Amino acid sequence: MAEIGAQNDPIVGAHHKNNVKYQRDIDQFVNVIKGALQPISVPPADSYMSTLAPAAWSGPHGSKLLIPGYNPNQVPETNLRSSAVTRTVGGMATHWTCSSPKPHEEERVLNPIPAAELDQLLDRAADLLKVKTDQYDTSIRHRLVKKTLQDALGPDRGVDSLPLGVTRNTGNPEFVTWTATDTIFDKWSSDPRFTLLTESRVTELHADPSNTEAIGGALIRDLKSTNDDIYVKAKVYIVACGAVCTPQLLWNSNIRPDALGRYLTEQSLSFCQIVLTKKLVESIYNNPEFKEQVDEHLRKHPNDPLPIPYKDPEPQVLIPYKSATPWHVQVHRDAFSYGDVGPKADPRVVVDLRFFGKGEIVKENRVTFGENDAQDIYGMPQATFYVTRTADDADRDQRMMQDMTTVANVLGGFLPGSYPQFMEPGLALHITGTTRIGNDPATSVADANSRVHGFQNLFVGGNGCIPDATACNPTRTSMAIALKGAAAVLEVLKSKKA
Amino acid sequence: MAEIGAQNDPIVGAHHKNNVKYQRDIDQFVNVIKGALQPISVPPADSYMSTLAPAAWSGPHGSKLLIPGYNPNQVPETNLRSSAVTRTVGGMATHWTCSSPKPHEEERVLNPIPAAELDQLLDRAADLLKVKTDQYDTSIRHRLVKKTLQDALGPDRGVDSLPLGVTRNTGNPEFVTWTATDTIFDKWSSDPRFTLLTESRVTELHADPSNTEAIGGALIRDLKSTNDDIYVKAKVYIVACGAVCTPQLLWNSNIRPDALGRYLTEQSLSFCQIVLTKKLVESIYNNPEFKEQVDEHLRKHPNDPLPIPYKDPEPQVLIPYKSATPWHVQVHRDAFSYGDVGPKADPRVVVDLRFFGKGEIVKENRVTFGENDAQDIYGMPQATFYVTRTADDADRDQRMMQDMTTVANVLGGFLPGSYPQFMEPGLALHITGTTRIGNDPATSVADANSRVHGFQNLFVGGNGCIPDATACNPTRTSMAIALKGAAAVLEVLKSKKA
Amino acid sequence: MAEIGAQNDPIVGAHHKNNVKYQRDIDQFVNVIKGALQPISVPPADSYMSTLAPAAWSGPHGSKLLIPGYNPNQVPETNLRSSAVTRTVGGMATHWTCSSPKPHEEERVLNPIPAAELDQLLDRAADLLKVKTDQYDTSIRHRLVKKTLQDALGPDRGVDSLPLGVTRNTGNPEFVTWTATDTIFDKWSSDPRFTLLTESRVTELHADPSNTEAIGGALIRDLKSTNDDIYVKAKVYIVACGAVCTPQLLWNSNIRPDALGRYLTEQSLSFCQIVLTKKLVESIYNNPEFKEQVDEHLRKHPNDPLPIPYKDPEPQVLIPYKSATPWHVQVHRDAFSYGDVGPKADPRVVVDLRFFGKGEIVKENRVTFGENDAQDIYGMPQATFYVTRTADDADRDQRMMQDMTTVANVLGGFLPGSYPQFMEPGLALHITGTTRIGNDPATSVADANSRVHGFQNLFVGGNGCIPDATACNPTRTSMAIALKGAAAVLEVLKSKKA
Amino acid sequence: MAEIGAQNDPIVGAHHKNNVKYQRDIDQFVNVIKGALQPISVPPADSYMSTLAPAAWSGPHGSKLLIPGYNPNQVPETNLRSSAVTRTVGGMATHWTCSSPKPHEEERVLNPIPAAELDQLLDRAADLLKVKTDQYDTSIRHRLVKKTLQDALGPDRGVDSLPLGVTRNTGNPEFVTWTATDTIFDKWSSDPRFTLLTESRVTELHADPSNTEAIGGALIRDLKSTNDDIYVKAKVYIVACGAVCTPQLLWNSNIRPDALGRYLTEQSLSFCQIVLTKKLVESIYNNPEFKEQVDEHLRKHPNDPLPIPYKDPEPQVLIPYKSATPWHVQVHRDAFSYGDVGPKADPRVVVDLRFFGKGEIVKENRVTFGENDAQDIYGMPQATFYVTRTADDADRDQRMMQDMTTVANVLGGFLPGSYPQFMEPGLALHITGTTRIGNDPATSVADANSRVHGFQNLFVGGNGCIPDATACNPTRTSMAIALKGAAAVLEVLKSKKA
Ligand SMILES: [Mn+2]
Ligand SMILES: [Mn+2]
Ligand SMILES: [Mn+2]
Ligand SMILES: [Mn+2]
Ligand SMILES: [Mn+2]
Ligand SMILES: [Mn+2]
Ligand SMILES: [Mn+2]
Ligand SMILES: [Mn+2]
Repeated sequence: MAEIGAQNDPIVGAHHKNNVKYQRDIDQFVNVIKGALQPISVPPADSYMSTLAPAAWSGPHGSKLLIPGYNPNQVPETNLRSSAVTRTVGGMATHWTCSSPKPHEEERVLNPIPAAELDQLLDRAADLLKVKTDQYDTSIRHRLVKKTLQDALGPDRGVDSLPLGVTRNTGNPEFVTWTATDTIFDKWSSDPRFTLLTESRVTELHADPSNTEAIGGALIRDLKSTNDDIYVKAKVYIVACGAVCTPQLLWNSNIRPDALGRYLTEQSLSFCQIVLTKKLVESIYNNPEFKEQVDEHLRKHPNDPLPIPYKDPEPQVLIPYKSATPWHVQVHRDAFSYGDVGPKADPRVVVDLRFFGKGEIVKENRVTFGENDAQDIYGMPQATFYVTRTADDADRDQRMMQDMTTVANVLGGFLPGSYPQFMEPGLALHITGTTRIGNDPATSVADANSRVHGFQNLFVGGNGCIPDATACNPTRTSMAIALKGAAAVLEVLKSKKA
Repeated sequence: MAEIGAQNDPIVGAHHKNNVKYQRDIDQFVNVIKGALQPISVPPADSYMSTLAPAAWSGPHGSKLLIPGYNPNQVPETNLRSSAVTRTVGGMATHWTCSSPKPHEEERVLNPIPAAELDQLLDRAADLLKVKTDQYDTSIRHRLVKKTLQDALGPDRGVDSLPLGVTRNTGNPEFVTWTATDTIFDKWSSDPRFTLLTESRVTELHADPSNTEAIGGALIRDLKSTNDDIYVKAKVYIVACGAVCTPQLLWNSNIRPDALGRYLTEQSLSFCQIVLTKKLVESIYNNPEFKEQVDEHLRKHPNDPLPIPYKDPEPQVLIPYKSATPWHVQVHRDAFSYGDVGPKADPRVVVDLRFFGKGEIVKENRVTFGENDAQDIYGMPQATFYVTRTADDADRDQRMMQDMTTVANVLGGFLPGSYPQFMEPGLALHITGTTRIGNDPATSVADANSRVHGFQNLFVGGNGCIPDATACNPTRTSMAIALKGAAAVLEVLKSKKA
Repeated sequence: MAEIGAQNDPIVGAHHKNNVKYQRDIDQFVNVIKGALQPISVPPADSYMSTLAPAAWSGPHGSKLLIPGYNPNQVPETNLRSSAVTRTVGGMATHWTCSSPKPHEEERVLNPIPAAELDQLLDRAADLLKVKTDQYDTSIRHRLVKKTLQDALGPDRGVDSLPLGVTRNTGNPEFVTWTATDTIFDKWSSDPRFTLLTESRVTELHADPSNTEAIGGALIRDLKSTNDDIYVKAKVYIVACGAVCTPQLLWNSNIRPDALGRYLTEQSLSFCQIVLTKKLVESIYNNPEFKEQVDEHLRKHPNDPLPIPYKDPEPQVLIPYKSATPWHVQVHRDAFSYGDVGPKADPRVVVDLRFFGKGEIVKENRVTFGENDAQDIYGMPQATFYVTRTADDADRDQRMMQDMTTVANVLGGFLPGSYPQFMEPGLALHITGTTRIGNDPATSVADANSRVHGFQNLFVGGNGCIPDATACNPTRTSMAIALKGAAAVLEVLKSKKA
Repeated sequence: MAEIGAQNDPIVGAHHKNNVKYQRDIDQFVNVIKGALQPISVPPADSYMSTLAPAAWSGPHGSKLLIPGYNPNQVPETNLRSSAVTRTVGGMATHWTCSSPKPHEEERVLNPIPAAELDQLLDRAADLLKVKTDQYDTSIRHRLVKKTLQDALGPDRGVDSLPLGVTRNTGNPEFVTWTATDTIFDKWSSDPRFTLLTESRVTELHADPSNTEAIGGALIRDLKSTNDDIYVKAKVYIVACGAVCTPQLLWNSNIRPDALGRYLTEQSLSFCQIVLTKKLVESIYNNPEFKEQVDEHLRKHPNDPLPIPYKDPEPQVLIPYKSATPWHVQVHRDAFSYGDVGPKADPRVVVDLRFFGKGEIVKENRVTFGENDAQDIYGMPQATFYVTRTADDADRDQRMMQDMTTVANVLGGFLPGSYPQFMEPGLALHITGTTRIGNDPATSVADANSRVHGFQNLFVGGNGCIPDATACNPTRTSMAIALKGAAAVLEVLKSKKA
């Protein structure tokens, strides 16, 4: 396995949020995430500074800063400005939220995998991801928020605990272990058959000269050793570099089916934070369900004006996608804290609302590569986005915003600075479709087995494989697809051995 | 060895800045540093928000937020507000700047180690740190900035290349390897005699019941397993947790000599960024020294308005401490980028100026622990600062600021947003004196061998051992002290064995 | 007449918004308003600056800045932080919005004036204020917004044009004339019986030594001439200095009935700005009602992407107070532009929403004067607020916020930076109750004739006289009360003459 | 006389800063200035907002906001971004700083008026402006700052009191009266020969059909009455609308000599604010010169930590232009407070430094009108700037910045937020040269009598007439020029009468 990023944990692929340090101070973790995410396509800014000293150097009039890291081909209006790539062993799983709801049927209508089979695969994925819904049941806030929303919104909305890939520690239940590649592939790194190349760029795949339907080798560069290019030959090649870098590598390998990078969907994301109402906070005192925990806390901290233990786990509540309200909702507390809670609000009364909205599937919504020979800072063809939301998307987003303000006002008042707002396009980091699977090579990149159309031994993995418009978190779905793909890979390996 | 933080790299103690990712994008590394540094003492803020919804919960009138992580005993005016602790295997060395100048004689007058011996130890430390001054000599900007300052300031100021613990890679000279614990202790982690406990808090040291002049054991807690306290017995105990957590552990072990936490010094830090003048930038074109590099760059990038290769290493220039100008100066580009270069200025024409100023040694400048039983978020006695700058410090700082603006105006114009300013107290992260070495137990914590006065087998390490007022980076000095201490530790071990 | 402020217009009391300059650029007028409003009670801030040069002077540790203009007695939590006083001839009317709806019956239940009489007085006030609802009927945006809201909210909400004290110019209908004291008292300044003292502070009223139920004179100081105190004797004394300075003068005159400054109500204010939806904007093209105006505009400006003439007057829409939705709503565009439209949004598609909420009448909600001998910068006893919102207020505000987000989402998307938020307490500038009229001297300051209880010749005027909790703009109501008071004043004058 | 702005004071042309309100709270006056200044040339911004709701209207991709008030022809790099016009009766004099130093000889080398005559005219101007240097001699801070700078900088720099057009009131010496048109033209508004048209735009001047060397009439429009154009005939026409609107009116009248709008100079402006050093503040206590004032203050306010009376007038110190330091310096406190003193610093220890730098005279530095038929919001041809600083300007600015930081560090520490910085181009509001006087019609617009070349009865006035590069405030110089021009006007009137 080759990974362009470094290994940033002694345990291959472990979740960084497992650190005591970040579990005690989730806001510190925001910096880790910021350090991990590299933006994909940044249009150059105007570089004129009106108050710079006249003696200082400045670029020609009207010029933009054309330095590595900026994409001169990117139009701001069609950019996914907050879209980013994680380059590290373990990928997104090193800082992933681990939210893993089962997608609604409307979120899997285009999938070429038969519905019953897909359903089973989704269940297997949940098992592998260690998805549970009861790990926050000891939390006062979790139960309070869940119950309040269930009462206010009624049973049709299906308010429930958020399915999470997480396991509460038995030794010290203050801490949890988040699912990541290490918890899935238990002992992989010590398996003698496994070799991990880090800080190694897979530049391109080469066709097998003797078989145009097969890949014959991969050109891999150890980035710190200019001349150490390696030509690696394998029986099977799996490209799973995320929804943007996977098509980027295919494109650079001259594998450019019409659907590559197209039918791209990204979810809209609306966000706000609220401070719980006095009424809800005060209802905790008299709730027999909470009595024991509250009493113990107040005995230890009699001057605390809040009846909530300092280590009360955060709420983790789901409002699932429904046909009438086709968006996915997380009511929780997350390190992706766009607003700044700062020291003004007691973090125990702050709740985040995140609403994820679908995007219609449109062929012209796409990512392109290498326009005008532009390269990214890793020397690969620069990705450029052409993504807009349709009129139907806009209507749905408007309804979603209205729903969010309604749900928020049930719980509390907007936290100043975290008012209800749409986030930058791309921030959901839920791009799909760029290497979508399907039966028709004209509108898909790979088949139901994730095998690239026209190749025997080339497979793709990741959210780019998802052919549907989704609102919920895509990881569980792309893992379901990958499980079927893995079986196909095994078949190839067996056949090659034979 | 026990470390309260996690191991965040497969190589024990490696420098995170070695990652390709951060060497290609130094501004991304700022987030890593932010994620690594935990503030020591944060006074609670007023929590009243005038625009919060009236229905939302808020604290009692006049209340401050008294939640874990805030220190109600801290007075803002005497705080080292930006002082922070790194909790990770390898400590500060995982993100240290590696600047390692030899301290001026005035910066080592109080050190109890004989002058000639100390001088040798400082040289040995430089060897171990792999300190060099020629690793940026290929850089156009480095040579330009150095020569410009040498010409403008004259020979008395001693402008030179900054001594850095760094080695340029031979495979790909675009990248360097920064010195850290891994490059010093080559194979330590695989030595079978070495055991590393991570996320393990050393709570306290216990006196040996049979010998009041010896430590008999240490209470260590694996943080993720509440009940797994360990009582560890050793021949020698070395406490090296940084200048604040080292005295914290002694204090919690009831080892509280009068000097503990006192005579604290911290350097003042003034900062600005400039954009090089047009004149200096244009002088590059005609400089025969740069001709080959410039020509090659312009051949590849004929439209680039700057004659500086995109991968030209940054400047790394020193203006050393002198009696007449008693401050340490770095003219360079660093990830500790307080201002925001942003996309407005071409990073190749931006230069940082950092001036570090001495602080007089004053007994009352100190850190205390556990006032009013307050604890930090790791359950240790909360540190509180009582540090102010003296009238002489203030005068010297004023002269230093004037010197910085003069040096800056030689090079260019202030970058808007990075104007000449003093940084928050504590930001230098160069606290010394809190466990200072000395011959007099009344005014020091340990002897010239770093052995805590009154104990046979208890040693301290780190910047806290430095008994002097310094302006330059303290690491090399504290390593020199530690080398002598290590010899003494060996003596103890030998005697115990015998 | 004495006024503490200067005369800032050649026409006594004219509305500054009448200037061509501000009608062409309403955002410029924001600065005029800011320059006119002087905050009433500003608690001193912490004055510690952590990055100030150590050599610079700073106050003692823990000190607050106790300089004139700050009120050391003010608790932030009970402050009306944005409450301000206008000191100028013409008062608030020089920059007033001129919104003058008729108050709902629930907004006038405590008024001692008989209901039928009050109703007539409110109509007379509207006549004097030149209140109209048809002055924006030529506006495309006005009609579009009004119709859209009428359709979406249904007839029960009573969406209509906002009643405004304004007259569109006949010479050039681009401009309007806003109602102010000049349009009400036509020729007052040239009436030889009228004397206007400006920049003259009325310090106190003196009791008539021969009649404890009468005022005998007023001490007035020309502020620019220290020694020119004047003792003015009159038949009748009318104090109408706004809801805070009116009780301030009474208090300083030792007239301190129990109700003085008490029963204070202020409205809550929620605010957001939206950008109209594409759908609504595009509906303009095909609307026959707008066709002529749109065609003419597009003929002149064929490249304008908007079908709205540049000088299309802004929308001025009302959603009136109803029992089920007890708040007053203005959907319009105003110079009180708290968010910053800036140059990013075409101002023609931006609409403001302002929702004004009632405050329950509570005796303890009050303004006090001269605590600890504090003075304001005019040398009068410093006003201090003790105002909080009740639980019922908070609930109602929460419902109002929910209503505002719903109304906003009907029209468009939130303008970034002008998200739905509560404004600072006091910003409505609609304080009432501080000199409330009533039949019971125990709970009011003046009688139904606005005559201060216990005095024959002392009258009060202004919003402080209103005894009710209101949501709509108070000017029309306080003018209705004043009209009755004026009749009583005439009676006194006649009797004195006789 | 016709003025496009309104009359904003009952006294024609009075200085708004005379108001008690602003003399008591100078920071409030900033808003008045902001409300008075209308920017001249604002390039349209990119209008894309990445977080706007997808349903909201937005312009076409890549579009700029082309709405009235923005100038699509303006290139940001050559703009005088902060240049602004005051449209009000009295013009800039209603908020002018009144700083009126005598220009250095190097600031008047190109003036066609003979040197001795010009010198006398400058003295007459000072008389009319009531310029004095002793009105702040009672101020402790003024004397402290002046003496400190005199001692530190030596006699060559000529540190002295700033010559100001101001008179301290005799009635109440807390207040002053600032010079403005009202103090110069005592009774003008009541002179029956004087007619003032306000909010009246002079659109164009018409040539006299019978005499091509004379103006025959002016077309004037009362802005609020579309159809009320007036054709005004006069014996003499004087255009004095400021350095931009004067050439604008000539251009619109088809009077377009080659020099019109060219040879434009504007001063650079560097700025910072400092907090006085503790040392300087403490020196006040023991200074016998201040003893009486300090004792009285501390008797009244024993808890004040500062020995400075609350009403101590601000410092008003000049460092004049010298050949070796060719810039004009004001060390004072002004309402043009770009930084925000805010409530953090006691305003009594804050001092402003403003350094004004010359700009070389360059023909191509210019303002043009009506490019691509663009109009400003008053319907006049839109002004567009083409102004850059030369290499010599840049060098001089760099030296000036270095001088400012040196002077600042003598007095105190930089106030956080008001660090040493260059202000936006145009902020000095000291544009000259656009209608410069001179003997050569090829390089000037008017002759030494301010009479437009080629016309008998057309005169120009204002800073645009100044033909030199200046650093000091231009008003006194343009008044000197105007005095000579006025004599010439009288000659014409006499001749016409005869
Ligand atoms: Mn990866
Ligand atoms: Mn996700
Ligand atoms: Mn450590
Ligand atoms: Mn350091
Ligand atoms: Mn008034
Ligand atoms: Mn109002
Ligand atoms: Mn004017
Ligand atoms: Mn000026």
